[in-house]
Amino acid sequence: MDKSYVIGIDIGGTNTVFGVVDARGAILYDGSIQTGIYEDVNDYVTALSNGLKKIIEDAGGPGMIRGIGVGAPNGNYFNGCIEFAPNLPWKGKIELARMISEKTFQIPVTLTNDANAAAIGEMAYGVARGMKDFIEITLGTGLGSGIVVGGTLVYGHDGFAGELGHVIIRRNGRLCGCGRHGCLEAYCSATGVARTAREFLMNRTDNSLLRELNAEEISSKDVYAAAVKGDKLALEIFEFTGNILGEALADFIAFSSPEAIVLFGGLTKAGDLILNPVKKSIEENVLKIYQGKTKLLVSQLKESDAAVLGASALGWEVKED
Amino acid sequence: MDKSYVIGIDIGGTNTVFGVVDARGAILYDGSIQTGIYEDVNDYVTALSNGLKKIIEDAGGPGMIRGIGVGAPNGNYFNGCIEFAPNLPWKGKIELARMISEKTFQIPVTLTNDANAAAIGEMAYGVARGMKDFIEITLGTGLGSGIVVGGTLVYGHDGFAGELGHVIIRRNGRLCGCGRHGCLEAYCSATGVARTAREFLMNRTDNSLLRELNAEEISSKDVYAAAVKGDKLALEIFEFTGNILGEALADFIAFSSPEAIVLFGGLTKAGDLILNPVKKSIEENVLKIYQGKTKLLVSQLKESDAAVLGASALGWEVKED
Repeated sequence: MDKSYVIGIDIGGTNTVFGVVDARGAILYDGSIQTGIYEDVNDYVTALSNGLKKIIEDAGGPGMIRGIGVGAPNGNYFNGCIEFAPNLPWKGKIELARMISEKTFQIPVTLTNDANAAAIGEMAYGVARGMKDFIEITLGTGLGSGIVVGGTLVYGHDGFAGELGHVIIRRNGRLCGCGRHGCLEAYCSATGVARTAREFLMNRTDNSLLRELNAEEISSKDVYAAAVKGDKLALEIFEFTGNILGEALADFIAFSSPEAIVLFGGLTKAGDLILNPVKKSIEENVLKIYQGKTKLLVSQLKESDAAVLGASALGWEVKED
Repeated sequence: MDKSYVIGIDIGGTNTVFGVVDARGAILYDGSIQTGIYEDVNDYVTALSNGLKKIIEDAGGPGMIRGIGVGAPNGNYFNGCIEFAPNLPWKGKIELARMISEKTFQIPVTLTNDANAAAIGEMAYGVARGMKDFIEITLGTGLGSGIVVGGTLVYGHDGFAGELGHVIIRRNGRLCGCGRHGCLEAYCSATGVARTAREFLMNRTDNSLLRELNAEEISSKDVYAAAVKGDKLALEIFEFTGNILGEALADFIAFSSPEAIVLFGGLTKAGDLILNPVKKSIEENVLKIYQGKTKLLVSQLKESDAAVLGASALGWEVKED
């Protein structure tokens, strides 16, 4: 029974959530601290480590923990560093994995970015269990991705592979947060849906429930609420979004020919409103030899747990003594 | 010294070329037969096997051969079959690997498509030696690709991964041979260059040496010949081609963040005329975190040998007894 648990840590800009996880993906003990209040990363790691020590004691002590996995924005698997994460208070390159391990019983710590962690979690506990080739697409504020090939996450030569939110889907298209134009993320994400809503409202004259709202404040949730009431313009926004996402997924299939593409995150709550256009668009755009082959799945991991579970799955990569 | 050689077989629509290869990539004995004249695949395999037996005897007998690798259009690594290859005389699904092995001393036979074989050859004997993450792009009549991630070729769940010639680089663009519109291959290949030449000549009025030729018969070689003479329109054709290829490569980098992209095949003979625009375009189009990281290399394998070498490299995958 030694080392039969792992710990997952999800670092967000506001909160850091962590938990002790067993082999079946149950979170046995958990905790959280605030992220943004620690200007000095050393203070942050001390607070985090204190939180971890508490749940480690609950779980029976450090001897029970195989490894710690961390999901963090801009986390680099190869060097265990966070590099230039725009939403975290610490600037430059932070050796976070080493720092956490040193303050937490020297337990091995592995780190990667949030979308990669989601993919690993999906493979360990989710709908991709047993799959060797799949792509996880996280549809949140932005669009993240974790690519699994032959049962292993694709990190690339520098640890930064899998930035599929930043392939160009519309040459000279919308300005993206990265400074380039036409990135997939600028269309297919919660913020992308809101931008589409504003564009449609401005360029068209047909009625819509969305016209009752302040255009600048429209969110993807507002679009969803209008769409379920049958609002035609809102429905078209999801069709537009799903169509573009399907075009991109068709190209991704030509790259790694995955068994499945797993969608995760807020936008998937729109269900068939977004999934049906995505499916249709994939089949319309994919090369003939791939038609009807790649499954489109929605993650069944609870969103509140998924980040911790995903990160924790990295802990299993540690070899047992 | 047992099993210290492998055999590579390159199956083209016209000829099938094969050779005994040593661990350093030297072709010690070789031979060839015609492909297209055998309407019955059994007759083809018999003739091929007779040719193989001769070079196997030259090499010291079947005990010297570790494995046989085959590069063939539409070759599937997982099942050893050729499936619906448009330029080969045999229809449907042909279990070629099994058939060759049965008639050739039961030596293990592994099969993949030509571009994958080129990538494996590059890793075994070429400029990608020692690399774990790179993408090989073959610029011939079409555009093929072999993707290596973590030291292993990406086959996908069905053996058909890596059809990067068929990502859509211009939505609603040129009609491609696959029946879809705007594929990368319709722009960045020998035939793509010839199409660009015809488009430029038709849509523009400026002088060009290319106007002396019959537009329908212009080849990429004609464009090259004009470009080295300083013909402005011909130079712009290579710039146009390189620019589009760089746009696509920037997206591929976002997928697998390779250490290098290796270009192979006829179009690379244009040298800096095409390479400079490709390099420029990659740097202009790539996401900031990738800038200046991925090397752009040209294969140094002799084109006449590369296909056999590439296929032969598959033979090393066979475990020694």
